Amino acid sequence: METIQYHPIGWIVSPFKDTVGVPRQAAGARDIRGKIEILDEFAAGLRDLDGFSHIVVVFHFHLVTSSSLTAHPPWDERDHGVFATRSPYRPNPIGVSIVCLDGVDGSVLRISGVDMIDGSPVLDIKPYIPELNPRGNVKVGWLAGKMDGMIRSCSGDR
Amino acid sequence: METIQYHPIGWIVSPFKDTVGVPRQAAGARDIRGKIEILDEFAAGLRDLDGFSHIVVVFHFHLVTSSSLTAHPPWDERDHGVFATRSPYRPNPIGVSIVCLDGVDGSVLRISGVDMIDGSPVLDIKPYIPELNPRGNVKVGWLAGKMDGMIRSCSGDR
Repeated sequence: METIQYHPIGWIVSPFKDTVGVPRQAAGARDIRGKIEILDEFAAGLRDLDGFSHIVVVFHFHLVTSSSLTAHPPWDERDHGVFATRSPYRPNPIGVSIVCLDGVDGSVLRISGVDMIDGSPVLDIKPYIPELNPRGNVKVGWLAGKMDGMIRSCSGDR
Repeated sequence: METIQYHPIGWIVSPFKDTVGVPRQAAGARDIRGKIEILDEFAAGLRDLDGFSHIVVVFHFHLVTSSSLTAHPPWDERDHGVFATRSPYRPNPIGVSIVCLDGVDGSVLRISGVDMIDGSPVLDIKPYIPELNPRGNVKVGWLAGKMDGMIRSCSGDR
């Protein structure tokens, strides 16, 4: 099977030290502050990032050691295919979160809206650009009417 | 250096066979249709995905063989740090695109808004959930006032 290899560009610093009590979505963690410490060798890649209020963080769920093709959110009645959920127990445990960029100090990004665990390897950072979002009618399938439960829940709620 | 390994869950089928002429953003490719062929072993993970109008596709820029810490979009005057751009020539060549999900036929996803190259390995699929986007004022730094150029440009424009 084809293997794709990446290397961390940095690591998350977060108040969450293990998988219990972590907000399940950045949107439910708006007041949680943390940092991204970028390796010095990549610091030049941060130029001009400070003009953006939000960034897209692509990171590795490093404490996830298993995966499942179905996921059962604690605030819903039944299983769903894992690709129709944001469960971390995915075939490739990659997280994508949009967080607030509060400031850039050299190679350290100060962020808020942190829903990542301390020590998570960061693979990529992209600017958040709302103009790239879909226009018009967006359908959210089985999540319709369940946003509050999703955004407010934390790991370990079950 | 720590290495993180992933395996493709499927591949992109797209009209773009090489790096020339590809829309630089999914938002500039709304009418371009393609598919994602998911490996049969992961098909069970697609359950309930068909209720979503849009999906987030995490994929590998497989034709990218170099990276740079700066990027110079052809429609802008100067270089920027690569993490402040969506250039594919990144330390970890990971793409994140939001595309329309037109339908699910077994293990094949019919999509539109395709800005990926044919054969790109797909690492993950997540539902697109607009409620997870930032609320309120979003600042887009050096991109302010340049969205049209960004969204309309294609690779090879320079």
